[in-house]
Amino acid sequence: MKESAAVKVRLPATSANLGSAFDVAAVALDLHLEVSAQRAEQCTIHATGRNTAECGRPDGNLILATYAHVLQDARLPAPPLALRVHNEIPLGMGCGSSAAARLAGLVLARTLGGLSWSDEDLLAWATAREGHPDNVAACWRGGLSVSAVERCGAPAASPASIAMATVPVPAGWSAAILLPRHPVLTEVSRDVLPQHYERAAVVATLQRCGLLIAAFATGDGALLRCAMDDRMHQPYRRVLCPLLDHAEALSRVPGVLGVALSGAGPALLLVLDQTASRSALEKYAGQLPDAADLEFLFCDFDRRGAQVDPTPEPILPGSSERPVLPER
Amino acid sequence: MKESAAVKVRLPATSANLGSAFDVAAVALDLHLEVSAQRAEQCTIHATGRNTAECGRPDGNLILATYAHVLQDARLPAPPLALRVHNEIPLGMGCGSSAAARLAGLVLARTLGGLSWSDEDLLAWATAREGHPDNVAACWRGGLSVSAVERCGAPAASPASIAMATVPVPAGWSAAILLPRHPVLTEVSRDVLPQHYERAAVVATLQRCGLLIAAFATGDGALLRCAMDDRMHQPYRRVLCPLLDHAEALSRVPGVLGVALSGAGPALLLVLDQTASRSALEKYAGQLPDAADLEFLFCDFDRRGAQVDPTPEPILPGSSERPVLPER
Repeated sequence: MKESAAVKVRLPATSANLGSAFDVAAVALDLHLEVSAQRAEQCTIHATGRNTAECGRPDGNLILATYAHVLQDARLPAPPLALRVHNEIPLGMGCGSSAAARLAGLVLARTLGGLSWSDEDLLAWATAREGHPDNVAACWRGGLSVSAVERCGAPAASPASIAMATVPVPAGWSAAILLPRHPVLTEVSRDVLPQHYERAAVVATLQRCGLLIAAFATGDGALLRCAMDDRMHQPYRRVLCPLLDHAEALSRVPGVLGVALSGAGPALLLVLDQTASRSALEKYAGQLPDAADLEFLFCDFDRRGAQVDPTPEPILPGSSERPVLPER
Repeated sequence: MKESAAVKVRLPATSANLGSAFDVAAVALDLHLEVSAQRAEQCTIHATGRNTAECGRPDGNLILATYAHVLQDARLPAPPLALRVHNEIPLGMGCGSSAAARLAGLVLARTLGGLSWSDEDLLAWATAREGHPDNVAACWRGGLSVSAVERCGAPAASPASIAMATVPVPAGWSAAILLPRHPVLTEVSRDVLPQHYERAAVVATLQRCGLLIAAFATGDGALLRCAMDDRMHQPYRRVLCPLLDHAEALSRVPGVLGVALSGAGPALLLVLDQTASRSALEKYAGQLPDAADLEFLFCDFDRRGAQVDPTPEPILPGSSERPVLPER
């Protein structure tokens, strides 16, 4: 590793599930985590943007922890790094902050630690840690990413085992994220889900999931209100994510195509068309009982995915130095 | 109704489910049911094509029964018809023969019985009778049709309650249907399914369903092998549809993108690319233990859907004369 080696990586926020596409799809948002890093005498972080206290603390930092973990598993040294972090992604809100942080750490390990991992290796490692591929895929590729873990029931993900497709987001669609004040831990939000589902609930959700992907593929925004409904997770997460009580009414504000819990919540994702009015939405949110605790973020969708500088040499999947993947 | 009034309708075969899109999607095949009808002194059927014995028998004929049923429900007379039926759709094999027959009967009732039903009314009636919208939607619209019953848990479908999208089938993809000798009743094939599913099985199927729609939308045929797998119905239908035991091996024949049970079976749908060889597939089938009972039908996908002559006057949904829909 050269002393002067440095790397920059820019990764988008992602909103997974979109209602019916539970653990299936995520869409990338034009809110970014930007990290630049180089080797240093000791670990330091200079943080700007949102959540600077959490982002600027080296202890337990997910970027640095991932970087160190991956290199330790590969039995390589993990030299201290000086990081500059600019973060626009709300933490703990269901906007893919952990997927972006893990992918940032993986990029640092690959570039500064000299790992010969392919992009598929990075995605497999991050998927295994996240427990599902949706945020990771959309964060890396941009757009609406659809992904499946190929081998049902396999004990560990392998790099070749994630099948992915990216559907472009239709022109003219944009997003709004409605944030409450307090975050929810993904693990807690997952604990409220049942272990079993009735066939009718599964079929209704499968239909909406298919319709959601088709709505993005055909640009038919009128389908989203139905397609962003589900019977797998949103009905159970209402107790942890009270903003869901307003989803139905918000979906009827002019210009709003559909509303769903963003990831495991507690934020809501709104998909908007060109007729949507920020002031109308802000006025609506201002009338809610918990208005003082709410924040609306309006943004475009991210259509590019991860930006890495320097661009790594292409590495074929299946190179000699394989990632060590955790048991799932 | 004019004495000389006559109508022709041409409807494609459809293959529903495609593995993971269980009760969600169907694709239209270039095998057709063609019906021409005019008023007559008594009901007669002149049948050509496949299954002429069943198609030519007026008693219990699904086309005539639908025609009569719909007009009776609307308290209108159902004059006897002389039908000419040319059928290319295998009956009882999971190729959408009942959806095509019902839609044919509905078109006859609308045109010859003078019903003022919109296309949405026809689709809602046929969906309520079929129990799911997938074959009906693909039969009417062609291509890969994705559909959802909008109001979860509503006691009866209403015309406005089916949301649909049509994704074109990628150029260069074609189909093969592998037929065993004996049909299976859809009801029997549904009885073997469990009432409840584990969350992991549901998530794996949702992921594949999303991937399937994305594979058609992006033309990425390499995704189909994974996407046409499922944990909702195919594992349970193996006992009734023994051809499923060969699906995995068939999916690895060069040029085969994916294999799934066609509808509720017992036929298999193979999606092929331009490198597929009919002779290689026929040779493969010829080596199976039950080879003497098998038939391969090779066909294009249907990209046009229902063809009706004369084209009906456009009728707005919500006209005065509403269809009487059965309880679901």
